[in-house]
Amino acid sequence: MSDFELESWLRTRRAEIDALFAARLAIVPPAEDPGRLVEAMRYSLLAPGKRLRPLLVLAAAEAVGREPDEPLLLAAAAVELVHCYSLIHDDLPAMDDDDVRRGQPTNHKVFGEATAILAGDALLTLAFAWLAEAGAATLAATGDPLVAKRHLRAVAALAKGAGMSGMVRGQARDLGEPPPESLQAVERLAAEKTGALFRAALEVGSILADAGPAQEEAMIRFGESYGVAFQHADDLVDEDHVTTQNEARQRLHVLTQTALDALSLFNGRAEPLRALARRLVDG
Amino acid sequence: MSDFELESWLRTRRAEIDALFAARLAIVPPAEDPGRLVEAMRYSLLAPGKRLRPLLVLAAAEAVGREPDEPLLLAAAAVELVHCYSLIHDDLPAMDDDDVRRGQPTNHKVFGEATAILAGDALLTLAFAWLAEAGAATLAATGDPLVAKRHLRAVAALAKGAGMSGMVRGQARDLGEPPPESLQAVERLAAEKTGALFRAALEVGSILADAGPAQEEAMIRFGESYGVAFQHADDLVDEDHVTTQNEARQRLHVLTQTALDALSLFNGRAEPLRALARRLVDG
Repeated sequence: MSDFELESWLRTRRAEIDALFAARLAIVPPAEDPGRLVEAMRYSLLAPGKRLRPLLVLAAAEAVGREPDEPLLLAAAAVELVHCYSLIHDDLPAMDDDDVRRGQPTNHKVFGEATAILAGDALLTLAFAWLAEAGAATLAATGDPLVAKRHLRAVAALAKGAGMSGMVRGQARDLGEPPPESLQAVERLAAEKTGALFRAALEVGSILADAGPAQEEAMIRFGESYGVAFQHADDLVDEDHVTTQNEARQRLHVLTQTALDALSLFNGRAEPLRALARRLVDG
Repeated sequence: MSDFELESWLRTRRAEIDALFAARLAIVPPAEDPGRLVEAMRYSLLAPGKRLRPLLVLAAAEAVGREPDEPLLLAAAAVELVHCYSLIHDDLPAMDDDDVRRGQPTNHKVFGEATAILAGDALLTLAFAWLAEAGAATLAATGDPLVAKRHLRAVAALAKGAGMSGMVRGQARDLGEPPPESLQAVERLAAEKTGALFRAALEVGSILADAGPAQEEAMIRFGESYGVAFQHADDLVDEDHVTTQNEARQRLHVLTQTALDALSLFNGRAEPLRALARRLVDG
């Protein structure tokens, strides 16, 4: 898949995800939106974004052989809800205290801290509602009783990646410990704070495409390597963790190759995933 | 079921739930608990509580015919996780700004705002992990493919009750609007802020006990009436909404009777639920 084809694939899928968000979180008249909760959720969710995590869900599913249908898009979008909630809560004054996100005032700067906390809570909760709904819709469409089991496994994977042993743990570590200095400490933090949700995205996509155990294992390896590589690339751009910059540049290449190697058992349908990994080093 | 028998039933079930929490959220050595996240989760979750919502899950399941086993206790406990997270976030300075909860300093007074926010996020996420795990365990024990579907429906019910059209909506209304003055406004707020999670508890319990549609409908009616009645009883004790106190006292009786009437199609196995409802008026 050439870069141009990847761009086309990304554009198409991203448009589908954005359309789903706009339709599902439609504008609510102020009188029916107490505390501006829905407005605040829309504000952050509909802000322009790369939609990388749901794209990884779809790319993983495609690699295993499932093309995007409505319920799969809904499940993919659920992973973005979790990412979006985490950004809102991370930006809060008690956390990173950020005023600007993606060129716009952060959620709490516009809606106040209380609504921002609640908007995050609601987005996180909605993620699991959407996964369950995706399961019910797929079950109704296929009649395959294994569909419910797969979606329940997807719920477990997302909750694990997002929660106390994954993303939230990374957040707690980031706030509760001095900045990491060694490469090992940088990567441990990245694996929790960033990698765990990437891994969950790959798991959700492959589980819902009915991947076999070897395929699922490969996707988990891809997700873990990709997640930490992504964080290295991000840190290098932001000039974070300056003590590890040379090491980080090397590790970015090694981890990207590890991610690509993990895909060796997949055919050409894994090209979107491969192209996404190559972009980490090609910029 | 006499009051004494109810007390015995409550004590037994509560001990099972408390034991589950203590075992599942075991003490973590400080070095392995970055940001004191687990310590903060334990602090709020293991504080003495009535455990009313998980008790309602178990009572609903028992009414339909399912005795508490390990996975059902886990699913019931998941509903308490959601309640516990909501208390931590409600107490935050940006929200109700409470310093004391159940006679102890609130979570953020002990652990700081950042950790309190994250502990809430982690508890909410863990609730869905536990529901999914309960499903996987029951599926493994029974081999019944419908088990996964039921647990997926329980995920949907809990997410709906907890989220943007339920509990979080009530929180947003409470913070974003002046205090309700009419009975109707008081009950709308109570239905969202309190009733939606009670309703979800009844739904989770009846769904996981494989209730028929009429039984499930009855449980929903019970949950909705019980939830608002519970809030009236709570407000009367706290002398909240003083303009509606006489009306609230009458409505407490009417709604309790409505809840009891909803149970007419159940036999003696619904006695714990009936006794819980009667306690609202008997004090």
